[in-house]
Amino acid sequence: MLDILRRIVQEVSTAEDLHQALDIIVHRVKQALGIDVCSVYLMAPDRQHLMLMATEGLNPDSVGHVRLALGEGLVGLVAERAEPVNLDNATDHPLFRYFPETGEERYHAFLGVPIVHHRRMLGVLVAQQHERRRFDDEHVALLITLAAQLAGAISHAELIGEVGPRRGTPRQANLQIMGIPGASGVAIGTAVVAYAAAALDSVPDREPVVSVEEEIHAFREAVQRVREEMESIKLRMNGVLSSEELLLFDAYVMMLGSDSLVLRTIERIEAGSWAQAALRDTIRESTRAFDDMDDPYLRERATDLRDIGRRILTHLQSGQRKTEDFPERTILIGEDLTATQLAEVPVERLAGLVSARGTGSSHVAILARAMGIPAVMGVSDLPVGRMDGMEVVIDGYRGQIFLQPSRELREEFQRLVDEERELAEGLRNLALEPATTQDGVVIPVYANSGLLADINPSKQSGADGIGLYRTEVPFMIRDRFPGEEEQVEIYRQILSSFDPRPVTLRTLDVGGDKALPYFPVHEDNPFLGWRGIRITLDHPEIFLTQLRAMLRASQGLSNLQILFPMISSLDELKGALRLLQRARDELLDEHYVIPMPKVGVMVEVPSAVYLAEALARRVDFLSVGSNDLVQYLLAVDRNNARVADLYNALHPAVLRALKQVSEGAKKAGKPVSICGEMAADPAAAILLIGMGIDSLSVNVASLARVKWVIRSFSQARARELLNQCMEMEEPAAIRALLNNALMQVGLGGLVRAGKT
Amino acid sequence: MLDILRRIVQEVSTAEDLHQALDIIVHRVKQALGIDVCSVYLMAPDRQHLMLMATEGLNPDSVGHVRLALGEGLVGLVAERAEPVNLDNATDHPLFRYFPETGEERYHAFLGVPIVHHRRMLGVLVAQQHERRRFDDEHVALLITLAAQLAGAISHAELIGEVGPRRGTPRQANLQIMGIPGASGVAIGTAVVAYAAAALDSVPDREPVVSVEEEIHAFREAVQRVREEMESIKLRMNGVLSSEELLLFDAYVMMLGSDSLVLRTIERIEAGSWAQAALRDTIRESTRAFDDMDDPYLRERATDLRDIGRRILTHLQSGQRKTEDFPERTILIGEDLTATQLAEVPVERLAGLVSARGTGSSHVAILARAMGIPAVMGVSDLPVGRMDGMEVVIDGYRGQIFLQPSRELREEFQRLVDEERELAEGLRNLALEPATTQDGVVIPVYANSGLLADINPSKQSGADGIGLYRTEVPFMIRDRFPGEEEQVEIYRQILSSFDPRPVTLRTLDVGGDKALPYFPVHEDNPFLGWRGIRITLDHPEIFLTQLRAMLRASQGLSNLQILFPMISSLDELKGALRLLQRARDELLDEHYVIPMPKVGVMVEVPSAVYLAEALARRVDFLSVGSNDLVQYLLAVDRNNARVADLYNALHPAVLRALKQVSEGAKKAGKPVSICGEMAADPAAAILLIGMGIDSLSVNVASLARVKWVIRSFSQARARELLNQCMEMEEPAAIRALLNNALMQVGLGGLVRAGKT
Repeated sequence: MLDILRRIVQEVSTAEDLHQALDIIVHRVKQALGIDVCSVYLMAPDRQHLMLMATEGLNPDSVGHVRLALGEGLVGLVAERAEPVNLDNATDHPLFRYFPETGEERYHAFLGVPIVHHRRMLGVLVAQQHERRRFDDEHVALLITLAAQLAGAISHAELIGEVGPRRGTPRQANLQIMGIPGASGVAIGTAVVAYAAAALDSVPDREPVVSVEEEIHAFREAVQRVREEMESIKLRMNGVLSSEELLLFDAYVMMLGSDSLVLRTIERIEAGSWAQAALRDTIRESTRAFDDMDDPYLRERATDLRDIGRRILTHLQSGQRKTEDFPERTILIGEDLTATQLAEVPVERLAGLVSARGTGSSHVAILARAMGIPAVMGVSDLPVGRMDGMEVVIDGYRGQIFLQPSRELREEFQRLVDEERELAEGLRNLALEPATTQDGVVIPVYANSGLLADINPSKQSGADGIGLYRTEVPFMIRDRFPGEEEQVEIYRQILSSFDPRPVTLRTLDVGGDKALPYFPVHEDNPFLGWRGIRITLDHPEIFLTQLRAMLRASQGLSNLQILFPMISSLDELKGALRLLQRARDELLDEHYVIPMPKVGVMVEVPSAVYLAEALARRVDFLSVGSNDLVQYLLAVDRNNARVADLYNALHPAVLRALKQVSEGAKKAGKPVSICGEMAADPAAAILLIGMGIDSLSVNVASLARVKWVIRSFSQARARELLNQCMEMEEPAAIRALLNNALMQVGLGGLVRAGKT
Repeated sequence: MLDILRRIVQEVSTAEDLHQALDIIVHRVKQALGIDVCSVYLMAPDRQHLMLMATEGLNPDSVGHVRLALGEGLVGLVAERAEPVNLDNATDHPLFRYFPETGEERYHAFLGVPIVHHRRMLGVLVAQQHERRRFDDEHVALLITLAAQLAGAISHAELIGEVGPRRGTPRQANLQIMGIPGASGVAIGTAVVAYAAAALDSVPDREPVVSVEEEIHAFREAVQRVREEMESIKLRMNGVLSSEELLLFDAYVMMLGSDSLVLRTIERIEAGSWAQAALRDTIRESTRAFDDMDDPYLRERATDLRDIGRRILTHLQSGQRKTEDFPERTILIGEDLTATQLAEVPVERLAGLVSARGTGSSHVAILARAMGIPAVMGVSDLPVGRMDGMEVVIDGYRGQIFLQPSRELREEFQRLVDEERELAEGLRNLALEPATTQDGVVIPVYANSGLLADINPSKQSGADGIGLYRTEVPFMIRDRFPGEEEQVEIYRQILSSFDPRPVTLRTLDVGGDKALPYFPVHEDNPFLGWRGIRITLDHPEIFLTQLRAMLRASQGLSNLQILFPMISSLDELKGALRLLQRARDELLDEHYVIPMPKVGVMVEVPSAVYLAEALARRVDFLSVGSNDLVQYLLAVDRNNARVADLYNALHPAVLRALKQVSEGAKKAGKPVSICGEMAADPAAAILLIGMGIDSLSVNVASLARVKWVIRSFSQARARELLNQCMEMEEPAAIRALLNNALMQVGLGGLVRAGKT
């Protein structure tokens, strides 16, 4: 049974469009279950009707014609209740509704199961049978399982407007898709799909770039080059490999000359595809036959074919993209955008980002905020492969995108874009004003950073210092652990630039989602694994080198603060302090003159919340890493789009935990800072002010906005709002209350698109 | 640089033993860095001395002869400080110590970096150079990186006694290795290595099973069968595949006949290996040449060779293990033992388990506790491949194993085994006594279960009901979602067996480490992903089917309790309650008579701790899932051996969180139960009694022990101990205090091996 399921799902995954996919489903299910009819009904774009989209058994001409309202007929009942309906005689049921064009009056037994994707009703899968009998449990279970597995693919197709009459009809305008806010701001531009190099499956659909002839030429060239590669390898290996091993190359070369590969691809180019997508489809088609086979050896042959495909693709892609390839206002789109892909777009042409995976706390979103570019993340149903060249509007406040906007929508958003620009210019003047509340409490706003390139922007934007310098960044961009001297140089530069303003260097925090290429760690749950201080305590030789470098870099300065990440017990803190003491003692022995730096603990593991007072007693300050803390408190990986909507920094548990940290630190008489993304959220910032948090540390692009919030409220008013929020149970209500408070003081521009 | 590193690490990983590995390291490092000398010193088994183990550049005869005490000489200094030492002229240093046999007086520049694995000093990697100059940062960094990457492999070799004079010397007796306690008890027996079928790399070393001739015969047979397979596939495919594709089979068949494969393997068998390991080594040797090549195509050929190896191996392994293959007292050993591997051993012959990966909370450990079999988990440096047939002693209390025990040690442990048995017999009488504290408080002890097979043992062991029935187990052992009728039957059986004693059915809790084969979900951090209630709320069709089945199963009974897993917000609870209400309304419409069951929320996400009171107000009871809660509070994946030692249910943060839950529930006037492994830990149970937890739910094997604890303490005394513990900051101190309290009342037998 499991095998049948896998086969169907796999076959569906290679379908070219929704219609083909549905045809495969009804055909295969009818066959596998030995039933008389299998049909699929999907919700129409109006979400009020269900439409017969595919059938095997009913009259094929009725596809696209039979429509039912929600709750109408048995199919409508299944959709309305989101539950299976299993009847021995459908015609007896009061809701039975007869469509003469289908010819279904002959079938008595009826089984309908809903197709649901992330709580959204997508349609109904129906099995019918001549004889009067209830379908047995086995059938019900199989259809439910299949519907659950296929829901993702169908949801995807629904969004790109494939649900409706047969293909060929124009796509819907103003198609709206929800994601997660990644970086504030709105943008209008042209979609450019970023895809992984030499990855066949991520090649997007596109028309021939210059001409059909050019594409065919390029394709033939690429094939020829791979053939030459093979021949030359074979020649070179002639004495090295045995004759049987060399045979394999002949097979490869023969495949490269075969009609099924070359001619089929050229046919596809002539039908209007660019070479890369034509190649992709040909390889898919050829491998499908192999994938279907029972023998694992034969299935492996598909791998060889894919390898050939990748080699050809590499040659097709070998010309790098040039600046001119990017439209004036590029909206970069990707399955899972990376920082590198972002960096490939000339910055003056980058208007916005949309990523199908990830969330507001993904690195690419953090980068977008740092650059002040709007971003929408976690749009799990984004039709990435078909978006290249589309006009797109993105609203980074609400996490919304619109494909193919109408003129009206575009104009509306253009107005917002213009207002945004004015607002940003207004904020620039705020940069050098102190961050003081209306009742005179100074709350320094520091910058988060990980690159030396951030130093100047941070200073210009009026940062009161660096609240979080991520030392792992220099570790991540090298191909080995940086040496002591290299580290001294980096740390010295940042410390001296800001002196006497404080600079907090966080010790190496790798693991989790930050891997060092030269120190690979593979874990099932990296966020709950070997990361941060856990690694450095296990490798004192690496930790001591870093601590020595930090201390040496601070010679003659007085602004170094050292922060330990991922502390979850007193034991770990004691171990880290011991090594710091040792590093300093050694340096004193070596005749360096180095003052003891201020030391802090990062509170990001829930256990540290409970230990806040005990930890604070042993160090100079606490710094809450709200990104990870929220993640652990709610058991939500912020990069996982399936659960990202559960990630919420205004969750009552988060507010109570933060209050607990603040109170613990106060008892020990030590200051607390917040250095996560939460501090840059204007609504959350009010609550942090109210809790008496001593300083905030945010990305450079948010600095002015956060200062504006601090300067617009008194701490007393913030405390009042905090107390109201602490009584509330629903994050949405808390958000609404705070947004309202922001609007009341004229900060509506920070809450949503536009100036007011 | 990264490439050099990868090559070295990869080459080292294919070495046959430590000596070969070290020779590769010194050879490659000298070459890559262009230095004059590269040497490795390792800690001797006495952990007091460092011994020169390999060198390229110094006199090779000095290997195995040069010994330094810790802190003696420059090498001793590196080891003592766990930091690199970099000198332009070593002979100037006061600690320089000259070994004439090495000829190292010619070398001036000296660089030593420590080799550290999980805080354990293993040795020193040294580079030397004629000229007087400090090695630059690049060199230091490279050696540190390399040392960090190689530390794991070296640590592994150290444990199996390879560190010391050259090979051939007998292994150490009483070699002790630490792991993590998996299941209580001690055992003595013979190691049987469980390895994955058809996985070449997990084939253990072993001598020929019957005779050299038999092994050679079996090997030739297997090769012949693979050849026949290939020929028949080729014949069958003759019309289906094109001639170029068929060429590939010829290449395979030729490889099967090649001398390099067949004769080399037979040579290895004749040298004293069984066929499986001989094949493994031949394939490794042949693929190494391919792995080294620059061209990805050629590297791919190694895959074909491995495929051939696997096919032959499958035939070699095709005869299933029989009961007689397992010694009387089998200690099952594995890299990552699975429940299936455990099930392969006849239960009367299974004396104990040792797994290199996993922790006390892994499923196989939970199973071991349920079966009452001692287990040691997370022995990350277990030399699995070389243990087959060794005599092993395991101590499941302390998480310790001893290889090759001496007669004295064996006799000592035999005494403990005998005492254990007496203790267990004594506990059996306790089964039917009520679980009442000395001051008359009744604390029901329920059983955790997931199989119908547990029903009778649970009843016999005196369970007051089922505190946690994991409904996902029937989902996991099927190949599709079970239908409503199937579920009704299962739930009915368990409810009616225990009626009127309460039975708590937890709704489907898949995701995390529990995957359904027919509903695959791939996530980077599954524990922080789509799991438990998150999935069922997104798939109401599956959830409603289950809720209907539970309700229908309870007809005429009054003991059903429904528990929702992974609740992290009020929103989720409200959604679940709405669906439960709907399922019941529908059933009432269908004329079923069903009372409203008691409903509970599982507290396992930290945010639920903060919401305890609000959640409790809306349901009938709370149940703390301590396994997951501890995991999230400490940000530790209990199955990850790298961090498993950080998992501690007696961590002060855990105790405070549990107290918070208990107080929240009390405010709402609702009872709290604990259903994680923590409830079965005698020391923790005292604290739970002290907190006023209303009931405990544990695995059947622990039931009597937990009752014994409850009956041995008054709640007042438990509260007193709790208050003392709440003041303490270190988990180890808490554990010591509680163990002491257990011993005082004569429960020492629950704390450590033996009766008292």
